[in-house]
Amino acid sequence: MAAKGLNAEPSSLGCVAIIGVGLIGGSLALALKQAGVVDCVIGVDQNRASLYEALDLGVIDEMGEWQDLPRADVIVLATPVDALFSVCQGLHDLSLKDGVVVTDVGSTKGSVLAAMSAAYGEVPAWFVPGHPIAGRERSGVSAAVADLFNRHKVIVTTLPTTDDAALGVVSRMWHATGAMVTFLSIAEHDEVLGATSHLPHVLAYLLVDMLNKDLHNEEIFSYAAGGFRDFTRIASSSPVMWRDICLHNPDVLKKLIATYRSRLVAFEKLLDDSDGERIEALFRAAKTARDNHYQSIAQG
Amino acid sequence: MAAKGLNAEPSSLGCVAIIGVGLIGGSLALALKQAGVVDCVIGVDQNRASLYEALDLGVIDEMGEWQDLPRADVIVLATPVDALFSVCQGLHDLSLKDGVVVTDVGSTKGSVLAAMSAAYGEVPAWFVPGHPIAGRERSGVSAAVADLFNRHKVIVTTLPTTDDAALGVVSRMWHATGAMVTFLSIAEHDEVLGATSHLPHVLAYLLVDMLNKDLHNEEIFSYAAGGFRDFTRIASSSPVMWRDICLHNPDVLKKLIATYRSRLVAFEKLLDDSDGERIEALFRAAKTARDNHYQSIAQG
Repeated sequence: MAAKGLNAEPSSLGCVAIIGVGLIGGSLALALKQAGVVDCVIGVDQNRASLYEALDLGVIDEMGEWQDLPRADVIVLATPVDALFSVCQGLHDLSLKDGVVVTDVGSTKGSVLAAMSAAYGEVPAWFVPGHPIAGRERSGVSAAVADLFNRHKVIVTTLPTTDDAALGVVSRMWHATGAMVTFLSIAEHDEVLGATSHLPHVLAYLLVDMLNKDLHNEEIFSYAAGGFRDFTRIASSSPVMWRDICLHNPDVLKKLIATYRSRLVAFEKLLDDSDGERIEALFRAAKTARDNHYQSIAQG
Repeated sequence: MAAKGLNAEPSSLGCVAIIGVGLIGGSLALALKQAGVVDCVIGVDQNRASLYEALDLGVIDEMGEWQDLPRADVIVLATPVDALFSVCQGLHDLSLKDGVVVTDVGSTKGSVLAAMSAAYGEVPAWFVPGHPIAGRERSGVSAAVADLFNRHKVIVTTLPTTDDAALGVVSRMWHATGAMVTFLSIAEHDEVLGATSHLPHVLAYLLVDMLNKDLHNEEIFSYAAGGFRDFTRIASSSPVMWRDICLHNPDVLKKLIATYRSRLVAFEKLLDDSDGERIEALFRAAKTARDNHYQSIAQG
């Protein structure tokens, strides 16, 4: 059935190859197998130990090599961002299946588009960038779970040249994992992620670094309560991954940081004026917005 | 034994009165009873339902009235900050026991010192401000637990006029709850809490408010992942309480906000320069500092 591909049976995605079988790639494989929408999952990973583990755990059906990729109907790029250029070049050097659809899972889209353009001269119509908004603190295939994306948003981004059928395949794939699929343009994606993810990470890293370096109090963290622990949790994220994200979304991030600085200045003015009424109103508006959102999730 | 007070038996604090039997006051009462260092705990609270509940739960031994306070060897002020002026005036109008020690649990010290000064003309030597760095998301006496302070820091602040014996009593009381007691001056307290608590709360409130108001995207929060949820949890704290905290520590807070803004400017420069090396070094230093601290807690 895999050989016949997408047209063999409307409900099947055919054969799916996952390049980079870690937390995200592995969880996607598990979710697709559980949903029964794949004929086989081929795992490809430089780390052979990881692949053996994935096979043992039933995450993948086959330990694949580069030359197995032409059998795939759908190829998912789930490697670290710094591997994307060589992976895309590698894909270009193969003769992929007719009608193949390629997607990725990266949290910034600029790098994968640059890698695809470098390899193919332009972004192919059958490449549909995707971004699942989900994760766990643990990483690696041993942390993969079938319900990682269930009820989480997955952003599928579109370019003017994106092929409709390819877009449909990627959307159907994510829908099968239980995810809520949303379409955004690349620019909208970068703005939304800049605000809800990239800026908060920068704010947390800078606060911890400031307390660590400026206050000359080695014990400073020992006075912190649970709120601080939660607030700074994202400052324990991978420095390399977040460096790359910042470098790939600098314009949006700079604009957000400048806006945020102006909010800080306005708040200093409220403190200067001892304007308790406006300070309370600001805090209340924030609390209401946040509580409403997480309440709607809990009820949704 | 209660009548003989502190000198009757060195290991007992005698009779402890808690004014404001909520999460903090109630947890302190439970911890002291469990440690066996009190002869009785009298609860005083405007909210009679709360007092009945505290009695039912075994948190307090007696539902007290204002006129019961002269029986107390130790009086703990655990009311909301806006009740402190009338509470302190009320204490002043009573004839408290000789050798009584009074302490509080507030997260800024300026307000309670102002309230004490207003009532007594100066801060009495037997008033020792305290601040347990502990809390839960739930509030009220029903959330009280005996181990709330166990292995948490409690800051006992001192003024030049503080009586040594009173300081000893308050320190011994908190030590009995399992807390790690630390002495700081009022100024040191406000700086440390400004950095680890007040500034993070302001940063979280401002981020949520900015996303809510500036981005004109009603769905913006739905794109947020788990990291955002943790990062903004403190923005769901009480707007009134945090308004009061900001208004009582404005100078420290303004200085910290200004320093933080300069860190943001420096980071924008790194983005302008695409200086991946320094961005990574900054993120790594923050991650290391945070991980080391929480690892030392886990092992401690």
